[in-house]
Amino acid sequence: MNFTAQDIAEFLNGEVDGDGSVAVNSVSRIEEGKPGTLSFLANPKYEHFLYTTQSSIVLVNKTFKAEHEIATTLIRVEDAYQSLASLLEMYEQSKPQKIGIEEPSYISKSAKLGEKIYIGAFAYIGSNVKLGDNVKIYPHVYVGDNVVIGDNTTLNSGVKIYENCNIGADCIFHSGVVIGGDGFGFAPSSANDYKKVPQVGNVVIEDHVEIGANTCVDRATMGSTIIRKGVKLDNLIQVAHNVEIDENTVIASQTGIAGSAKIGKNCMIGGQVGIVGHLSVADEVKIAAQSGIGRTIKKEGTVLQGSPAFDYAPYQKSYVLFKNLPKMREQLFDLEKRLKNLEEE
Amino acid sequence: MNFTAQDIAEFLNGEVDGDGSVAVNSVSRIEEGKPGTLSFLANPKYEHFLYTTQSSIVLVNKTFKAEHEIATTLIRVEDAYQSLASLLEMYEQSKPQKIGIEEPSYISKSAKLGEKIYIGAFAYIGSNVKLGDNVKIYPHVYVGDNVVIGDNTTLNSGVKIYENCNIGADCIFHSGVVIGGDGFGFAPSSANDYKKVPQVGNVVIEDHVEIGANTCVDRATMGSTIIRKGVKLDNLIQVAHNVEIDENTVIASQTGIAGSAKIGKNCMIGGQVGIVGHLSVADEVKIAAQSGIGRTIKKEGTVLQGSPAFDYAPYQKSYVLFKNLPKMREQLFDLEKRLKNLEEE
Amino acid sequence: MNFTAQDIAEFLNGEVDGDGSVAVNSVSRIEEGKPGTLSFLANPKYEHFLYTTQSSIVLVNKTFKAEHEIATTLIRVEDAYQSLASLLEMYEQSKPQKIGIEEPSYISKSAKLGEKIYIGAFAYIGSNVKLGDNVKIYPHVYVGDNVVIGDNTTLNSGVKIYENCNIGADCIFHSGVVIGGDGFGFAPSSANDYKKVPQVGNVVIEDHVEIGANTCVDRATMGSTIIRKGVKLDNLIQVAHNVEIDENTVIASQTGIAGSAKIGKNCMIGGQVGIVGHLSVADEVKIAAQSGIGRTIKKEGTVLQGSPAFDYAPYQKSYVLFKNLPKMREQLFDLEKRLKNLEEE
Repeated sequence: MNFTAQDIAEFLNGEVDGDGSVAVNSVSRIEEGKPGTLSFLANPKYEHFLYTTQSSIVLVNKTFKAEHEIATTLIRVEDAYQSLASLLEMYEQSKPQKIGIEEPSYISKSAKLGEKIYIGAFAYIGSNVKLGDNVKIYPHVYVGDNVVIGDNTTLNSGVKIYENCNIGADCIFHSGVVIGGDGFGFAPSSANDYKKVPQVGNVVIEDHVEIGANTCVDRATMGSTIIRKGVKLDNLIQVAHNVEIDENTVIASQTGIAGSAKIGKNCMIGGQVGIVGHLSVADEVKIAAQSGIGRTIKKEGTVLQGSPAFDYAPYQKSYVLFKNLPKMREQLFDLEKRLKNLEEE
Repeated sequence: MNFTAQDIAEFLNGEVDGDGSVAVNSVSRIEEGKPGTLSFLANPKYEHFLYTTQSSIVLVNKTFKAEHEIATTLIRVEDAYQSLASLLEMYEQSKPQKIGIEEPSYISKSAKLGEKIYIGAFAYIGSNVKLGDNVKIYPHVYVGDNVVIGDNTTLNSGVKIYENCNIGADCIFHSGVVIGGDGFGFAPSSANDYKKVPQVGNVVIEDHVEIGANTCVDRATMGSTIIRKGVKLDNLIQVAHNVEIDENTVIASQTGIAGSAKIGKNCMIGGQVGIVGHLSVADEVKIAAQSGIGRTIKKEGTVLQGSPAFDYAPYQKSYVLFKNLPKMREQLFDLEKRLKNLEEE
Repeated sequence: MNFTAQDIAEFLNGEVDGDGSVAVNSVSRIEEGKPGTLSFLANPKYEHFLYTTQSSIVLVNKTFKAEHEIATTLIRVEDAYQSLASLLEMYEQSKPQKIGIEEPSYISKSAKLGEKIYIGAFAYIGSNVKLGDNVKIYPHVYVGDNVVIGDNTTLNSGVKIYENCNIGADCIFHSGVVIGGDGFGFAPSSANDYKKVPQVGNVVIEDHVEIGANTCVDRATMGSTIIRKGVKLDNLIQVAHNVEIDENTVIASQTGIAGSAKIGKNCMIGGQVGIVGHLSVADEVKIAAQSGIGRTIKKEGTVLQGSPAFDYAPYQKSYVLFKNLPKMREQLFDLEKRLKNLEEE
């Protein structure tokens, strides 16, 4: 199916800059652009590809100013990346969707299933489970007893959800996600060994949450581990028992959050960050990759780096001086020597 | 079912401080306490909640001294966290347990099954497998050929155990755990590529080991990767080939231990720690989160931090000075200037 | 089955040093050596075990010179570790191989299966999938629609491959590997929440790639995430959307590579390394464990450490001085004091 630049511009409420009749039937990255495809430019790092790309159409921000001549047709939009998302969403929704129940699957008689759902072969639906409308359960998914799953949520192949957890609507969990495994709770006993503290709480995940492959969210010791609406978790993240992550916070891969920590709204947390338990992080905090957060962060919008982390800009300064420590030591030696000379005069 | 403070105190061998006739039927966290529930106080950080909690009963340590008036009934016990564990354990054991074999499942004819076991739908039990009594195998678990599993062990949905591994009694493995994947062993060859070294060993896990979701324990190249009794591993941990972890060591999430490292008894290892291969760590060593261990640690009870790690207290000092490096440089400049003045006099 | 030292030396093109008639039927690690087994010595750290080992035969490098008397029979070969790999490979290939299709499994009618394949129970093969000859698909593997898998590739229990991905020949993926989950792409919208950017690309993995347990390789937003031939990935690694890893690069456990990064050939990347997105790393670069790469590395063969990383040797120097910062501060104080004395004279 072909769309002209003019068609697309209308759909996106954008403006054509160039030949509006040129047509595309696919998408490509600007650096690998081919005729008949549409690309986008949002990251300035990639601007130089715009002048040589073979893509027939490129989405750019309204504010973009070209520094050289451009052969391709531009469509100027408010936000090129958002517009790409809208286009791809339309494209995805036009594809045929999985529906129906494949055999063999295991569906408890007490489970309640919504309309237009998909349950793949080898999926396991436990007792008293409730699945909303349009839910997609791929093969090898395990949904434990009493789990509730909201409308339009997709659980990809191999997702595991332990008993009693609540999952919202419009969520996407990727393969290998584990929701509701036991928190890491052990009471030290006198004999140098540990007694397990049974974890009798659950996990509550609100709407519009996406969770990446092999990420783990542990159930609460008591009460609930909570992930609020709009949160996006990347792959291989650890969320410990009784953690709470507030709305629209975004966390990159391999970050770990220890027990009972509370993370604010709209935070942006880099990859491989570690956050100690029993503390809180204010709203809109940004944390650089590989940082370690060891104390409560009270100020909204703080930007942090380091392990343990402190403010980003001072960290950067300290790190530059860390690199220059050998030079600093030489200066010290030099001063020492000159001082000695003076003292001996 | 209701229990009075007096009932619970007797079960825990504790003392009631307040109204012994007050009854509870559930548990809650002290900061979310509700009437009719029991909470506990172990971490002093949470003490202030005690004076306002709505919980009907709170477990506290015998040694606890209140600083304000308390409305709720206290039960004083030797160790509040341990006592909570005992109570929750009783509660868990009172719930109905999974038992029997669900269909479809795949059980090799040569497998030997103990009594009172549970095998969930879509579980796979290979040739010559031996399962002890009361073993629970949840859906989508894979138990490879010749694996032996001791009494009372639970494998949650999606656990994978490769052939020839031995698992002890009273173990709990959470979803996504992989036991016995090939170690990362490749012999460099002349042509800049690698020849796989087949991993012909296995994994041996002793009794009372708990392993968190998506943690991986690789099989040995030759011999065994060994996890001794009482070890507790959190989620997303990497244990490489031929590692040995001694009794009752506890390791937090996302830590990685490279090939052939030997970890002592009763160690406490924080999250996101990295331990280099072919070294050993003494008993009772404590390692701060995000540290990197690059050399053998011979002294028992050492406390370490940093990457590469050294003793905790000096690390803390160095890190404070790292933060102050800009100030230190200013001091250097100041000295330089003053020295120059003196030299020019 | 027994092999004499003479037999093995011939197979490996090596030389017997000692009794050529001694026979073995198994392998063991040199530090755990038993009579009737063969061991190897490659890492000099383990040399002292050679003088006391009970192993009947030990493979050593041709260049090895003993410092003490040796009781066991040596076989001298070009490369002891490579030779061990060859022997173990022969041993592995002599074992019976899984073959045939176990029931119940789910195989789409439109799938094309090669010869001599193994498909385990509860495996799921989607529409239009193509499996090459000798492919082994273990239980609980999910192969999404339109996936192509080359000859001799093994997918261990629980591997998940999303639709439209291409996997080469002679690959081994371990349990819990997820190939083709959605990249972490979200366009910020005005209301502080995020719009998902559908990920319409795929993953292409070339021949002879081995991927460790629970490692994740995300599909591209557009185009392909690419892993070139001979790459070896350890467990729990994150490879984000549109990353490209070039031939024969080896990456240790728990490392993460962010979106659109390009990694060169023959690189050696340690464990728990983080690599920022949209940059490139030259061929033959070596990166120490726990390092963070925040900028493009242009020079081939660079060796890096730190977070953010810089050249290995200067990093080591700076880190030694970091440890000595308290001493450096004392020196500063001392200079300050002496200077003051001079100034007051």
